[in-house]
Amino acid sequence: MKKVQTISEIRKIVSSVKAEGKTAGLVPTMGALHEGHLSLIKKANSECDFVVVSVFVNPTQFAPDEDLESYPRNLSEDLKRSEKAGADVVFAPLVSSMYPEPQRVWVDVEGPLTETLCGASRPGHFRGVATVCTKLFNIVQPDRAYFGEKDAQQLAVIRAAARQLNMPLEIVGCPIVREENGLAMSSRNDYLSEKQREQAGVLYESLELCRELFDSGERNTARLKSKIRETIRTCPSADIDYIEIVRKDTFQSEEDITAESLAAIAVQIGPARLIDNITLNP
Amino acid sequence: MKKVQTISEIRKIVSSVKAEGKTAGLVPTMGALHEGHLSLIKKANSECDFVVVSVFVNPTQFAPDEDLESYPRNLSEDLKRSEKAGADVVFAPLVSSMYPEPQRVWVDVEGPLTETLCGASRPGHFRGVATVCTKLFNIVQPDRAYFGEKDAQQLAVIRAAARQLNMPLEIVGCPIVREENGLAMSSRNDYLSEKQREQAGVLYESLELCRELFDSGERNTARLKSKIRETIRTCPSADIDYIEIVRKDTFQSEEDITAESLAAIAVQIGPARLIDNITLNP
Repeated sequence: MKKVQTISEIRKIVSSVKAEGKTAGLVPTMGALHEGHLSLIKKANSECDFVVVSVFVNPTQFAPDEDLESYPRNLSEDLKRSEKAGADVVFAPLVSSMYPEPQRVWVDVEGPLTETLCGASRPGHFRGVATVCTKLFNIVQPDRAYFGEKDAQQLAVIRAAARQLNMPLEIVGCPIVREENGLAMSSRNDYLSEKQREQAGVLYESLELCRELFDSGERNTARLKSKIRETIRTCPSADIDYIEIVRKDTFQSEEDITAESLAAIAVQIGPARLIDNITLNP
Repeated sequence: MKKVQTISEIRKIVSSVKAEGKTAGLVPTMGALHEGHLSLIKKANSECDFVVVSVFVNPTQFAPDEDLESYPRNLSEDLKRSEKAGADVVFAPLVSSMYPEPQRVWVDVEGPLTETLCGASRPGHFRGVATVCTKLFNIVQPDRAYFGEKDAQQLAVIRAAARQLNMPLEIVGCPIVREENGLAMSSRNDYLSEKQREQAGVLYESLELCRELFDSGERNTARLKSKIRETIRTCPSADIDYIEIVRKDTFQSEEDITAESLAAIAVQIGPARLIDNITLNP
């Protein structure tokens, strides 16, 4: 499997693939590939003739006080795992190729979609995400791009950008892959000690209890959120960033759930800010 | 020559053209085509196998107090002129096709490039321009897109957006086409009475006198701008919006010209806001 660093080379490769009438899939990642990423690559491989995995830790989606420097990087391992999962090429550009000059052009997604949840906690984050994904789409020109549902808000932002800017590709969302204790797979799980990793199971546990309550008929979002909060608080090392229940279509909250909704949480455990979510469908 | 209204149809047409290995050119316009537009179509026709002219009066680049409603529209005449100039298809979408829902996703170009000149006079204008051009590029997927140099700042904004978002096309700028008295061709010239049209020759006259002064060795931008101002003031019906001299690369002003620069003006004459510019190269 090929590793490509330059924009011109990946363009040449994909355009020759597409000239043969083949379809191309893109799996955009920040590397440190885990089973969640691999499920995206496998899905892409099952739907597309040619699969590109991009590995790029995008500086514009990190705030100055965030973990850009310490974010895990392990390209040689990423190459092996990508190949095994069915990738045809890994595109791993340098920061200086993706941002050869100070970035002044941004894809901005406005409204509740970027003002709530992680958008409120991480100002500028989704601007960086939407911008780098637009760049990657324009560089690789895939027919489909694959994203995990763990980053539900990111997926919604990218879907909105693709739809409202008429981008010529399909955005495909893929289910969350979890560790045995329910912890959603994330590159940031690498920051956790073994004990913290175990404790982090409380995130999914809290969402499962929320779903149980929902399934028993509870529709009041305050009470559903309370259930999540009290569950997470049983873990003394967990520091809640947010617990929200929002409509999946608008990312706005309701007093009582009336439409397909997302129960989404962000929790700091030790050095790692972890996010997770489930869908509640009345 | 074909007239196409839907996004799906224009996509189908261009993709079948490109599948044959042919190149496609796009000339984005707001209609009311004049000799300036026709020169773009001819240029596109000379460089591309297939030429699409888009005709779309884009609401998102007009402020509420501007001339969206009164902007000249004459599609049947545009179709004839496009065909005669060598277009293969005119894409004239409805507003409801381009903006089927409230627009929340924007291509924002930041910095002096959009803060000076028309960016200062028309806040939000270039956001609308960059966004609709991005949409048109994603819909038509041309190899090249053609813009007139009369809208020098628009051209620079689109070049920046294309470059920094890695859009897979080439942006081609084409020289200003002028009427006999020097007035730059513009759809908004239709707003002028015969007498105003004659008077509007003062815009180019002022730029020509500025260039004469520059050619005689003057580099001080204040004095060069004074020459423009005093010339325009000889026309009592001319109301100056701005007179600026900025570097072409940064759109920032200097005390003395040291690099290729743009002398750019915006002047209201009767009902029409007119713009014009020349390049000064030391």
